[in-house]
Amino acid sequence: MQQYFIDTTLTLQQVETITDPRIVHHVVKVMRMRPEAQFELVDATHQPYLAVLQAVAADQKQLQVQITKRLQRQTELPVSVTLACGLPKREKTEWIVQKATEMGASKIVFFGGERSVVRWDTNKAAKKLARLQLIAQEAGEQSHRNVWPTVTFVSNITAVTALSASVKLFAYEESGKQGENRVLKTALNQLNAEDELLCVFGPEGGISENETAILRTHDFQATGLGPRILRTETAPLYFLSCVSYAAELIYS
Amino acid sequence: MQQYFIDTTLTLQQVETITDPRIVHHVVKVMRMRPEAQFELVDATHQPYLAVLQAVAADQKQLQVQITKRLQRQTELPVSVTLACGLPKREKTEWIVQKATEMGASKIVFFGGERSVVRWDTNKAAKKLARLQLIAQEAGEQSHRNVWPTVTFVSNITAVTALSASVKLFAYEESGKQGENRVLKTALNQLNAEDELLCVFGPEGGISENETAILRTHDFQATGLGPRILRTETAPLYFLSCVSYAAELIYS
Repeated sequence: MQQYFIDTTLTLQQVETITDPRIVHHVVKVMRMRPEAQFELVDATHQPYLAVLQAVAADQKQLQVQITKRLQRQTELPVSVTLACGLPKREKTEWIVQKATEMGASKIVFFGGERSVVRWDTNKAAKKLARLQLIAQEAGEQSHRNVWPTVTFVSNITAVTALSASVKLFAYEESGKQGENRVLKTALNQLNAEDELLCVFGPEGGISENETAILRTHDFQATGLGPRILRTETAPLYFLSCVSYAAELIYS
Repeated sequence: MQQYFIDTTLTLQQVETITDPRIVHHVVKVMRMRPEAQFELVDATHQPYLAVLQAVAADQKQLQVQITKRLQRQTELPVSVTLACGLPKREKTEWIVQKATEMGASKIVFFGGERSVVRWDTNKAAKKLARLQLIAQEAGEQSHRNVWPTVTFVSNITAVTALSASVKLFAYEESGKQGENRVLKTALNQLNAEDELLCVFGPEGGISENETAILRTHDFQATGLGPRILRTETAPLYFLSCVSYAAELIYS
């Protein structure tokens, strides 16, 4: 079922008028919904509801819906995960944001890595982040999350070390090559529900020695992500999948 | 370090002449390597070696290299994993092949799903598979694997049920929605080194009821992949990451 994030607070049984052009366009033009059609709305408090379309305005610029059910569901990771990704090339930022949102990330921070080929100045960052936020919002709707991740940009690794976290890791290619295979599983095995996990991923060229030293000074631990070399846009997805596996799945 | 797959069998200390235009072009034009440059060659027996460039022919159509070291490394998953993916739209086949190769898949089988929008006839499949095999080969080199996955196409789900496997699963969106969170971890927790794991993923519209029935008849078990709805190209990556986490990582 289709889901939309709405920036108001809803209550059960109320009739709500929706004017957000993004939602109106999608309901009317893309989904071609008719009165009685159902969809989900997640309100500003991150509470999901079932909504029934009552009417589309004659000018097709607003919708009237009734909120018919409060939904109980747990689609958020039990721990908060921040990904700090060295700015990669081209459309890889979009892929990382879309996939990491599906996989449950709380925050995505791109940083200017010493080996990043791409540079973002303030203007470019503002434009790119607006687009990435929209991708995160749509991926959050598609994957039926109750919240979508914030996407931000900081200029270098030092700003990453200032982020709040209780468990701090960085994906280190050299660790993987040397057969390091304990750090990630040990860390995820010890997670508590209130933990804030932060993991740093280098851009295409990896994390520099200087950046590695800065991370170690700030108590970030190097981790391998299995024995194969993962691309910059693949590593965060491996990491998030492992967090989900460790924290959300159980065995009989 | 750069790696290439070569279709001959190498021995330590031998001098090998390389004429494969793909490798020659990459060494000479892309990497601009000079004599004494080192790279890795994985031979037809899947054994990796270190090679040193000795000379580039004047016509730049062949290389002479010396094989200087037999490399010991384990970059293959300890279990064999076959992904059977309902044929998705556009470039998603390429993404699945590239990422699944990085993450260690043994075989990737695309099947014509009842809800697949795209159709491949014999001619189209042959063309597409040639390109996908090349993507798999390059991703295998990039991720430093000893073998790259085979990529094939079968016309429907019934052909998928004929594939050999000791553990047979299918990713089922309804299972995820209903909070199913035991099947995957239980299956991966019981894996043995000789197991052949096969997991089926639907195309964008999911697996049909008819296909689900066929899979169940052939002892495929439905599994959730965590509580969020994953896109068709994201689900196989979640699955492979979990296999790696369960089979390759350990905790202290």
